Amino acid sequence: MGLATIPALFLFSGQAKIPLAMLVVFVSAKLMAEVAERLGQPGIVGEILAGVLIGPSVLGWLAPNEFLGALSDLGAMFLLFRVGLEVKSSELLKVGGTATLVACSGVAVPFVMGTAILLAWRAPLNEAIFVGASMVATSVGITAQVLSSKGLLHEVSSKIILAAAVIDDVLGLLVLAVVSSLTHGKLDFFQLALTGAAATAFTIIVAKWGTHAMGRVVPHVDARLKAAEGRFVLAMSLLFTLALLAVYTGVAAIVGAFLAGLAMSESALPRERDLVQGVAELLVPFFLAGIGLHVDLSAFAHTGTAALAVVILAAAVLSKFIGCGLGALGLGKAEALRVGIGMIPRGEVGMVVAQIGLGFGILSRSSYGVVVFMSVATTMVAPPFIQAAYRRPATAAVAESEEEEVLRLG
Amino acid sequence: MGLATIPALFLFSGQAKIPLAMLVVFVSAKLMAEVAERLGQPGIVGEILAGVLIGPSVLGWLAPNEFLGALSDLGAMFLLFRVGLEVKSSELLKVGGTATLVACSGVAVPFVMGTAILLAWRAPLNEAIFVGASMVATSVGITAQVLSSKGLLHEVSSKIILAAAVIDDVLGLLVLAVVSSLTHGKLDFFQLALTGAAATAFTIIVAKWGTHAMGRVVPHVDARLKAAEGRFVLAMSLLFTLALLAVYTGVAAIVGAFLAGLAMSESALPRERDLVQGVAELLVPFFLAGIGLHVDLSAFAHTGTAALAVVILAAAVLSKFIGCGLGALGLGKAEALRVGIGMIPRGEVGMVVAQIGLGFGILSRSSYGVVVFMSVATTMVAPPFIQAAYRRPATAAVAESEEEEVLRLG
Repeated sequence: MGLATIPALFLFSGQAKIPLAMLVVFVSAKLMAEVAERLGQPGIVGEILAGVLIGPSVLGWLAPNEFLGALSDLGAMFLLFRVGLEVKSSELLKVGGTATLVACSGVAVPFVMGTAILLAWRAPLNEAIFVGASMVATSVGITAQVLSSKGLLHEVSSKIILAAAVIDDVLGLLVLAVVSSLTHGKLDFFQLALTGAAATAFTIIVAKWGTHAMGRVVPHVDARLKAAEGRFVLAMSLLFTLALLAVYTGVAAIVGAFLAGLAMSESALPRERDLVQGVAELLVPFFLAGIGLHVDLSAFAHTGTAALAVVILAAAVLSKFIGCGLGALGLGKAEALRVGIGMIPRGEVGMVVAQIGLGFGILSRSSYGVVVFMSVATTMVAPPFIQAAYRRPATAAVAESEEEEVLRLG
Repeated sequence: MGLATIPALFLFSGQAKIPLAMLVVFVSAKLMAEVAERLGQPGIVGEILAGVLIGPSVLGWLAPNEFLGALSDLGAMFLLFRVGLEVKSSELLKVGGTATLVACSGVAVPFVMGTAILLAWRAPLNEAIFVGASMVATSVGITAQVLSSKGLLHEVSSKIILAAAVIDDVLGLLVLAVVSSLTHGKLDFFQLALTGAAATAFTIIVAKWGTHAMGRVVPHVDARLKAAEGRFVLAMSLLFTLALLAVYTGVAAIVGAFLAGLAMSESALPRERDLVQGVAELLVPFFLAGIGLHVDLSAFAHTGTAALAVVILAAAVLSKFIGCGLGALGLGKAEALRVGIGMIPRGEVGMVVAQIGLGFGILSRSSYGVVVFMSVATTMVAPPFIQAAYRRPATAAVAESEEEEVLRLG
């Protein structure tokens, strides 16, 4: 390139990196989403697949890096914040009992099944336990995105899924704490109780009183602000504050983001919702493609590993479906089916657990690859089933909504 | 911290970095903007000052890093894209003649004055020329943000400022090319002509035919897309594509972003404008505070350097005001005053030039500090004057708009 020899081009050459990364990730995610939609699949599957395609395993255009990782984290936070904005916390608290049941049995079954399979595969006990732990936590982002894009967040089962996924995150934290302590040979019950209490207290306090607090604070502060878009500024401040507090109390940033959305859900005007939607539209593809970017198919060169990956994937799908479905059986079969399917995606949480296991030297590289594969594959397997489960009307839900309609019309 | 000893907290501890940085930058920028507004100053001054405050010079909470730099770049791109959306390219092309005059004399005067001052200060010739070159390019973002937030983008002087700033960027590229070649002892006129031609051709082609092309393509593609928010997806794709092409042809990414906005300005519906506004509201504070973050007051421990900084700042303000004002004198004094003031901010472009000079070993660390100070200080000095210049009605403009009104009413 003759042009490249001119020093003037030094001026902005460093600037190419950002628009290039934005262009490649955003456009490929949206193109693949379009392809998926045309094949009758949820667009989200295409966006994750785009990450696999442009990532190290296939085309090798991009590898996970700090900038893309940060955009992916932000994308997940805005996705959950937006979902929180659409839901009333009072309605989530109402289904709290069922959701707790769903979360607990949805944590126990995958953990036991995963550990058992690895033991049967003759892995060391510590490794088996760690793989089991990585199969525990549901990634609420994926299901929430599918439900939200199809306008299904008002369904009873959707609320149970959201509440259960939050509880699930707290339980996942405790499971990982126990497992990490066990594999290090020391278990401090006091510390463990403290961690659990902090995470639980944070979640319950914000879910219970957040909306009320914001309902009082926001109009008051907004009226005194000179700045334009004052409510949006408040919403962003709350979002980042609660995401940070969530991390400090031990739960994921996205749980804090979801709670922030809940807290703002009755104070946000359509204007703020549109502004948040803009950020989410831009950043969510980075979250989804970012999941796909982490897949490394070269880990499966060994047929034994590939076989284990398939078995673990099947176990991850089945165990979550059975565990959560059983917990929701009180609502009727159709609703239990939806809840069971909706809780299947693992996404980024399983990958974080696997990374810790790898860092501790407990997981081998191949088990790590298996867990990452399971995490990504569950996020891609679930959406078409979620879509199908909601297309076929749940008899119980239909009866219920008809009843409501009768009440309203009457 | 007892909690930190629990391995479970490893799970998300890496996640604290992103929400923490978002919270600190966003909230401090918005708080300082509020303070500035209450003091009758443009909020933008407060946002830049927030960066100085939290940066290495004062509180030391944050230093410029890759993540914040990327958000700052994106913020500048969305700021210019949003401004482009509000302007019609046909109107910019109409004032092209005056704008070219403004840009040329606004480049010549600061370059000569800056070089002369450094020579009088007994700096080596190469260093003097480089400081002169760093005083050339206007940062259109700052002025555009002030004009846009006050709803003044439709004024004739605003359009001249925008068009002149774009031309200015191309001229700045050429000046830097010449200066870099000269200081390296070789000047290749052919390469220089090629660079200039590529940058000019890119800018003119997109400005002239971009709107028409998008007007044909967007509705057509939008109608065939299955995806929700199809036009927003198209707008983002165009934004990143043109930002990247701009960098490749040698102009700044933000010039490409501005041209993308222009091209979409007649195809974007209110919905897309709101979504873009959301992203801009979130990211622009990172651009503004990011400018402030680069200030390093420790460079001025030496009184000689501090004195030079003050002299260069005064020269930067005066030379641009005089140079651009003279170029716009044909429109009457009041409009020339607005154009002269509106072109004062240097912002990030001057800093990039200074960084290159530092990298070449031509600028000393203290001259580098002086240029950075000049860049940041001009962005903070200009906004109050811009606000004042537009508050006092320009007699010519008033006469003109009254005429228009008469025509409309008649």
